[in-house]
Amino acid sequence: TRLDAVDRAVLEALVPDGVEPVQHLNVELGDRSYPIAFGADLSAELTEAVRRELAGGRRLAVVTDERVRAAQAALFEAAFAGVPVLAVPGGETSKCLSQLEAVCDFLAAERVDRRGLVLAVGGGVVGDLAGFAAASYLRGVDFWQVPTTLLAMVDSAVGGKTGVNLKAGKNLVGAFHQPRAVWCSMRVLETLPEREFAAGMAEVIKTGLLGDARLFETVAEEAVSGPRDPRLPAIVRRCCEIKAAVVKADERETAASGGRALLNLGHTFAHAIEAVAGYGEYLHGEAVGVGLVAAARLSAALGLIGEGAVQQVETVVAAHALPVALRAPLPLEALMAAMQRDKKVRDGRLRFVVMEKLGQAATREDVDAELVRAIWRRLGAAAG
Amino acid sequence: TRLDAVDRAVLEALVPDGVEPVQHLNVELGDRSYPIAFGADLSAELTEAVRRELAGGRRLAVVTDERVRAAQAALFEAAFAGVPVLAVPGGETSKCLSQLEAVCDFLAAERVDRRGLVLAVGGGVVGDLAGFAAASYLRGVDFWQVPTTLLAMVDSAVGGKTGVNLKAGKNLVGAFHQPRAVWCSMRVLETLPEREFAAGMAEVIKTGLLGDARLFETVAEEAVSGPRDPRLPAIVRRCCEIKAAVVKADERETAASGGRALLNLGHTFAHAIEAVAGYGEYLHGEAVGVGLVAAARLSAALGLIGEGAVQQVETVVAAHALPVALRAPLPLEALMAAMQRDKKVRDGRLRFVVMEKLGQAATREDVDAELVRAIWRRLGAAAG
Repeated sequence: TRLDAVDRAVLEALVPDGVEPVQHLNVELGDRSYPIAFGADLSAELTEAVRRELAGGRRLAVVTDERVRAAQAALFEAAFAGVPVLAVPGGETSKCLSQLEAVCDFLAAERVDRRGLVLAVGGGVVGDLAGFAAASYLRGVDFWQVPTTLLAMVDSAVGGKTGVNLKAGKNLVGAFHQPRAVWCSMRVLETLPEREFAAGMAEVIKTGLLGDARLFETVAEEAVSGPRDPRLPAIVRRCCEIKAAVVKADERETAASGGRALLNLGHTFAHAIEAVAGYGEYLHGEAVGVGLVAAARLSAALGLIGEGAVQQVETVVAAHALPVALRAPLPLEALMAAMQRDKKVRDGRLRFVVMEKLGQAATREDVDAELVRAIWRRLGAAAG
Repeated sequence: TRLDAVDRAVLEALVPDGVEPVQHLNVELGDRSYPIAFGADLSAELTEAVRRELAGGRRLAVVTDERVRAAQAALFEAAFAGVPVLAVPGGETSKCLSQLEAVCDFLAAERVDRRGLVLAVGGGVVGDLAGFAAASYLRGVDFWQVPTTLLAMVDSAVGGKTGVNLKAGKNLVGAFHQPRAVWCSMRVLETLPEREFAAGMAEVIKTGLLGDARLFETVAEEAVSGPRDPRLPAIVRRCCEIKAAVVKADERETAASGGRALLNLGHTFAHAIEAVAGYGEYLHGEAVGVGLVAAARLSAALGLIGEGAVQQVETVVAAHALPVALRAPLPLEALMAAMQRDKKVRDGRLRFVVMEKLGQAATREDVDAELVRAIWRRLGAAAG
């Protein structure tokens, strides 16, 4: 159930001096392999790549949201000139089947054929929605991810999970569909609200905690200051590398224990917080911040890590302007019920990702419900 | 581009005496292999199989339509007792993304989890809709096909294509998702309107024409009389076998020529008829009947087959109560434009499946548009 050590060579890239302007990581998945590019500013490379595809006669179409289109006006003028654009409304509510229909109608109207290429330009909502549209339209066309949030870069853009929400819960409908390329340009993060940048850092911290103690130490020694932090391209790359290694080992999340489930460190708690507080009250990354503290406490309660390690997690989460407890009390039993509905639950048994030490996660079945209640109370859940 | 001869041993089963009460065909697709059962009445076997799954603790859910639920009341009482049922409205309009959402909401409400099993009980609409829901819900759960129309048995239930329609056209959104089992019980066809049974025979004739001259001869010598025709289980089995062989060779329809496209014999014409006449005017199989005559004429015009063969096709189509020409004139240029919009068209070039002889099909690129216009006129298309 342990995440095997992945290739550590790239860790050297965490030394700022070693950061190349454009780095590539190849995600190896046989005939579904694809490159991820990282750099301070990839505008020129992306513009050139889009021109090359258009020159080759492919039908391209951009799916984005209204906020991103406004915030990234320069990128749209340069890189996507001549490419039709659909901008869905911003926010999680666009991750639904009626927007999927709007995207597919758009692709059909633009006569995108089987050789076509969809460009998903935006955060996780756009990536998941446009990716699912690309997976489903004509039963599958190619797509590129151009993530415009830190969260999307380190999390949703890698791994091939796409999908939308149902009224009953998040991400309950979707497909596994790998992008053909991912473009991580730190430049696009400069227009991102600080709160959203911080939310992305929650997944960076999570990645360190589940698979790479050195990555965790890097952000623990000095908090990442923002999009211009010179360590950022290498940190994002390391997160993608770890996620890619996990995904490669368990592409369709079929492993009985460990595997892709490890990426959900802190997420069983986070999903419950989001569901009970109402989607939108917490940014996903903010809920993950609380969830990581919860997972650390659970790991300590199970005797896997010490109180000192829990403190370290709390300190790093707080240092990145993320909450370490519920901002306002939420009803305990509602949180417990939401966990039971989580699709990661198997046959009604509570299943968690815990830390065996900082940098190494494992799945744990049959966690005692009273233990979980105690942790919720400590985080500020209200009785009843 | 030719369909290679598939195993001919099962042809012997076309001798009525040789028909076993329950036959099985295994569709070999590696870890996505599945059995198809054929028989005069599989009610008992299906009831037993459902009980076994329920006893194993799986969450089952039936998706059907209102007509099928009424027509197959006995089957529902016996086989699906204790299994939650969602009946969507009957007809092609249910093959849409809002019904997909209704199905997924139903599966979530019934707490179907990743180990769950969806039973698609109905014709092609239900199979395609429920199959796409099974492909997408939780990014993929198992499903069984219980086809209740002849068309679904010989066509949509085999091959793993699932999906729904967009306003812009049929089957433009979907997934490749193989069923875990298919149950072809001729008994359920006894409540099928005669017109729909005939429509199913169009695909049987098509299958003979594209891949098995003996199958074509069998239905040419004596038209299939109805669901109780003792030859039917073996004929349906042979159709599934041929389709399975084509699908196996080209599961995701990526072959440059031939391959899965051969299954579209007559369909480029048929889709145009359905689109221009308005969905519902012609049953799909009726449009295919006309399309097969059109494909035969096109093959003759290209010098591949003789006029005698065209006559044979027309005679067999007519003998099964199917149209051999447009029932009422449709505008020629609207038909041509609809063909251009067909998703099988590549880079705007007209691509057809033709017959090299009766029982052997091939794909043909760059067919002269004037030749196609002449065939439409012969079928009764009106100028303009």
